[in-house]
Amino acid sequence: MRLQVVNPNTTASMTATIAAAARSVAAPGTEIVAVTSPHGPVSIESHYDEAMAVPGLLAALDPAADAHVIACFGDPGLDAAREVARGPVVGIAEAAMRTALYLGRGFSVVTTLARTAGRAEELAQRYGAAHACRRVRACEVPVLGLEDPAARAAILGECRAAVTEDGADVIVLGCAGMADLCAALTAELGVPVLDGVAAATRAAESLVALGVTTSRRSEYAPPPPKPGGFPGERRAQYTDSW
Amino acid sequence: MRLQVVNPNTTASMTATIAAAARSVAAPGTEIVAVTSPHGPVSIESHYDEAMAVPGLLAALDPAADAHVIACFGDPGLDAAREVARGPVVGIAEAAMRTALYLGRGFSVVTTLARTAGRAEELAQRYGAAHACRRVRACEVPVLGLEDPAARAAILGECRAAVTEDGADVIVLGCAGMADLCAALTAELGVPVLDGVAAATRAAESLVALGVTTSRRSEYAPPPPKPGGFPGERRAQYTDSW
Amino acid sequence: MRLQVVNPNTTASMTATIAAAARSVAAPGTEIVAVTSPHGPVSIESHYDEAMAVPGLLAALDPAADAHVIACFGDPGLDAAREVARGPVVGIAEAAMRTALYLGRGFSVVTTLARTAGRAEELAQRYGAAHACRRVRACEVPVLGLEDPAARAAILGECRAAVTEDGADVIVLGCAGMADLCAALTAELGVPVLDGVAAATRAAESLVALGVTTSRRSEYAPPPPKPGGFPGERRAQYTDSW
Amino acid sequence: MRLQVVNPNTTASMTATIAAAARSVAAPGTEIVAVTSPHGPVSIESHYDEAMAVPGLLAALDPAADAHVIACFGDPGLDAAREVARGPVVGIAEAAMRTALYLGRGFSVVTTLARTAGRAEELAQRYGAAHACRRVRACEVPVLGLEDPAARAAILGECRAAVTEDGADVIVLGCAGMADLCAALTAELGVPVLDGVAAATRAAESLVALGVTTSRRSEYAPPPPKPGGFPGERRAQYTDSW
Amino acid sequence: MRLQVVNPNTTASMTATIAAAARSVAAPGTEIVAVTSPHGPVSIESHYDEAMAVPGLLAALDPAADAHVIACFGDPGLDAAREVARGPVVGIAEAAMRTALYLGRGFSVVTTLARTAGRAEELAQRYGAAHACRRVRACEVPVLGLEDPAARAAILGECRAAVTEDGADVIVLGCAGMADLCAALTAELGVPVLDGVAAATRAAESLVALGVTTSRRSEYAPPPPKPGGFPGERRAQYTDSW
Amino acid sequence: MRLQVVNPNTTASMTATIAAAARSVAAPGTEIVAVTSPHGPVSIESHYDEAMAVPGLLAALDPAADAHVIACFGDPGLDAAREVARGPVVGIAEAAMRTALYLGRGFSVVTTLARTAGRAEELAQRYGAAHACRRVRACEVPVLGLEDPAARAAILGECRAAVTEDGADVIVLGCAGMADLCAALTAELGVPVLDGVAAATRAAESLVALGVTTSRRSEYAPPPPKPGGFPGERRAQYTDSW
Repeated sequence: MRLQVVNPNTTASMTATIAAAARSVAAPGTEIVAVTSPHGPVSIESHYDEAMAVPGLLAALDPAADAHVIACFGDPGLDAAREVARGPVVGIAEAAMRTALYLGRGFSVVTTLARTAGRAEELAQRYGAAHACRRVRACEVPVLGLEDPAARAAILGECRAAVTEDGADVIVLGCAGMADLCAALTAELGVPVLDGVAAATRAAESLVALGVTTSRRSEYAPPPPKPGGFPGERRAQYTDSW
Repeated sequence: MRLQVVNPNTTASMTATIAAAARSVAAPGTEIVAVTSPHGPVSIESHYDEAMAVPGLLAALDPAADAHVIACFGDPGLDAAREVARGPVVGIAEAAMRTALYLGRGFSVVTTLARTAGRAEELAQRYGAAHACRRVRACEVPVLGLEDPAARAAILGECRAAVTEDGADVIVLGCAGMADLCAALTAELGVPVLDGVAAATRAAESLVALGVTTSRRSEYAPPPPKPGGFPGERRAQYTDSW
Repeated sequence: MRLQVVNPNTTASMTATIAAAARSVAAPGTEIVAVTSPHGPVSIESHYDEAMAVPGLLAALDPAADAHVIACFGDPGLDAAREVARGPVVGIAEAAMRTALYLGRGFSVVTTLARTAGRAEELAQRYGAAHACRRVRACEVPVLGLEDPAARAAILGECRAAVTEDGADVIVLGCAGMADLCAALTAELGVPVLDGVAAATRAAESLVALGVTTSRRSEYAPPPPKPGGFPGERRAQYTDSW
Repeated sequence: MRLQVVNPNTTASMTATIAAAARSVAAPGTEIVAVTSPHGPVSIESHYDEAMAVPGLLAALDPAADAHVIACFGDPGLDAAREVARGPVVGIAEAAMRTALYLGRGFSVVTTLARTAGRAEELAQRYGAAHACRRVRACEVPVLGLEDPAARAAILGECRAAVTEDGADVIVLGCAGMADLCAALTAELGVPVLDGVAAATRAAESLVALGVTTSRRSEYAPPPPKPGGFPGERRAQYTDSW
Repeated sequence: MRLQVVNPNTTASMTATIAAAARSVAAPGTEIVAVTSPHGPVSIESHYDEAMAVPGLLAALDPAADAHVIACFGDPGLDAAREVARGPVVGIAEAAMRTALYLGRGFSVVTTLARTAGRAEELAQRYGAAHACRRVRACEVPVLGLEDPAARAAILGECRAAVTEDGADVIVLGCAGMADLCAALTAELGVPVLDGVAAATRAAESLVALGVTTSRRSEYAPPPPKPGGFPGERRAQYTDSW
Repeated sequence: MRLQVVNPNTTASMTATIAAAARSVAAPGTEIVAVTSPHGPVSIESHYDEAMAVPGLLAALDPAADAHVIACFGDPGLDAAREVARGPVVGIAEAAMRTALYLGRGFSVVTTLARTAGRAEELAQRYGAAHACRRVRACEVPVLGLEDPAARAAILGECRAAVTEDGADVIVLGCAGMADLCAALTAELGVPVLDGVAAATRAAESLVALGVTTSRRSEYAPPPPKPGGFPGERRAQYTDSW
């Protein structure tokens, strides 16, 4: 099985972190192919960033892959990707939140900037996890500053507060760039800590193993062709696989 | 007051219809400036179309406008536009649905293709109108076929069914391209029929009259600047107005 | 357009404040006619007050008006007024809350007495704004004490707490008697502060401009006539306009 | 125990039906005192009727009673009555819906006019029964026509449809004037059929037996006194019992 | 009327407390028959305890009773009991929560161990009381330690905090073993305090008085017979009464 | 990895079907150990059956397993199993419903007897899937009759109706005994059809791969020990692994 993990920002070092997280949990026989978006913002920290990242992300989808993971916690472009990709597509926020629901009554999200909390709450609502989402916490570290040791202390602090103040049974890390912190935080905190990249990797694998892909019944059927095509876009490569 | 109405698809004839709808309800003293998106799909009938329309739409936002209307019923790019525009931004689905709530217990949406119904339902949920949304009905006419007389009969048929079968007190037309049908349908059906372009025009005007714009507190503050800027995008023009 | 703003309590000085708020935002060509309820409580601070205010409010509705605003944050008599008025009727709580949803992710209400918070929460639920209503805060100033400078300090304090503690993007003022504080509070706080009278004035105007009124399909059709009429009530004047 | 059942319309024959329903289920030792509202509409079939019925209903509350039932399915004036009455107050819609929840997964309401269905749905939402309310059905018989044998056939027909089409486990009768049909319908249909008057009588009795009344903490404390009193209203009699 | 109150744990002293609570509120003519579960855990403080208590509880149901109360705040086995009992069955959590809704806007639950709070929240959701449930508070006293005077102080402390911090109008005691504290706490706190055993006793009595039992339409019809019967279980006694 | 799949009824032939479904999707390296419950009902078709199945199911949990699947669509005993098992525990209804959410906007459940539909709806609510669950359909085939060819036709008919009438994008099969129908139905219908046993097998595997198990923070910590132990139960074997 060939599983494509798309980093929808253009920062290659983050793609490497994401690829490692995916590989660390993939089942035997799964090939992880991680790609960096060909164009768009260097990090995704606003609705504007998300919107500008989507065309690059969609262009990066590889029709030869059996399934796709979108490795940004805002799950940008998820519905659009489902329409145009042949295999199933999984967002890391949806996978992390749904996985958390197997492990306890409630979870908190620990994310980067407070300005992204609204999007996380909206996703929890959309994914049917709002009742279980105790709180979305921000450590106010920008995405590209996550490597900093002080950042890690800030994240740990918010995770602790999630357990003691919010009563969270489970922590969901709210950024693909935090993927490498998961095991250490689980050990430190004594509650499950979930990274969306890992969760989504397993979820996407599972869909392929179950022999299913996105339903083509109505909403997620391939988009109707346009007179004159899509200006400036390279969607042509998908035509064959529909 | 200068109110910009953005048609996020690239079909200029639809922009003309939209502009007429906006002008027909604008208050005295409001200048309607309607623009066609500079690049993107010719019509928006899928999640993919929406996603590909957003960069063009964002590029079209005019910093000199006092307020903006996004004239596509999927309300594409609404959150992103709110971050980068100086004045308030109103989507036509949110305006139509919220306006409907003043007029009766329940409404039905009559839209173009059934494949877009899921997005309309999701927006009703997001906008707090799900309890009042009786049903989303599709007449299965593509956006660019709305001019056809047969299309009008199909729309009227769905509107009638909304009243008699769904018990809808109000009809919301689910496409900016239907803006010119509103008065005739209201007369025919005997219940209020709402066009989102008109509703959003008045809502945007009202926000300016109230002296308010999008809150800049956290989520909708201008996006953090990126090292190296946004590749390939012309957001620079907004920097001054932030 | 003739827009009637009804103060459902019997305190004429509050009607003057309300009229000024309505006039300050009305579009050119809109005539604001503000009336004081002919009988009922001097202020509305309880469910009992609301109930006792409704007959006077309904009696005050002027069939010659094109639209009506009910200027009390509990939106008393709104459904009944919709049945008997020819033009659309807008409550100030519904207008303020729906307007807030255009401006940010969440709002808090700052009201007079804590005992009215339950009603505000119930209205937020009814209007589809419960998901966005961060909190209802009371400054514990009675309605007729709002002119007091100490009251203004208390209101400002609660507004500040709404921003810093509740994470509110927008403030909704929960009493028609606060209408004159709006601009000063917006300037002070740096987030949009909404007065329901102003918001409802623009919403009611907009409905008239859109050419719609309350749906007459079923629930809001004129009430069935009674054998012997309504004892002791002057509803007769409406008979003609139905 | 003295239990006051208030008929909020002015039709004495309906009060007799209501009294009989209450007496048929009251516990030994409970005295049922049924009163007809001193002023207001002869039947309650609209929001306007409800609003105009409330002052009479509030005036009819007897401070010597241990508890009160409001015998109209719209539960008019319930919150106001709770503020001013010494003992607990129960509405027949809330009692019927909450009782239904003990007896099955879902219920349907069978009411008089379709125009009242919106209010019933709103109450189901308010009372936490919306998830269980399968449908509100109307037999289109006016309140004062319920005695007609044809009316009874229409009601039975809707009840049958509730079971077979809606999958209702339980039927809730949506009008105090249907109170005498309960036993016959239960026998005919083979599922529990609930009359709100009977359900509310037992609920009110139970609250007295439990030694509790409406919480006086904040919202339902007695209304603040007004300068000059309540014009034209006889609330004075309650002052002592607060 | 013969009302069976089942203590689903095997501690007879708790059965005595429960029986006294039921008798203190029962209507004249109601015979309270309290039974201790024949097998299962000595107290119920976990999901495991609940699950292991259910077979004993079901075996204890007496077909000669007119109604049944399940006297454990987790309402264990409620759906199963409804299928196999002839008369109505009421859980103490559902009765306490629904009763609280008649008395104020919001309630808090004060329970024994924090680990049971998740179950209480889930029940509030199921019973349509989630909107009114301000918080579930734990005093961290085990069920069998409730007799301890220090336990009573801890409970009182949590009740006070529910009023002052949560804004609860009503307190619901979250354990059948607290039944004897109700009156003293109500007097101390000045807000209604509800014990589920008392509330359920009156609710079950009321259903019998109304002449109804669990709907037998589909879900709660007697379970289909099995080839070979239920191994090791004594359900045979119920066959006749179905 | 050793994954235990527990059939909570006592019918060994159904265990074989379940085991085959689990093995058909398990990742390389996963050992599937399927067990039949040692005591309880031969099939689970009622709340009573579920309740009586739980002690046997709990007794069957093998502490040597890395994870557990409960293979009955009512997810009986799930919370209790999570408290006492060392590894994660997954129910087939929760896994099937959550998996469906990755594949389309809405799903319908096709189950055996209509009497079980209420439980499926309740689970959809609990799992955050109620918004997506279009309908629960029953083919009225008892669990032990699923092998019958006529049964398969009935199931196919309901699946077709789910697509055409409910607008379901995805079908969820509502019984572990239908596990072998999945691939054929997917091929026939052209939309994804999910079997819970397969979905849960992958979900449980994934949790182990992610290195997490049920949070032990509060609710799902091992149950507090009892004075005298659990009468008649063999929980002792779990003591060591806690």
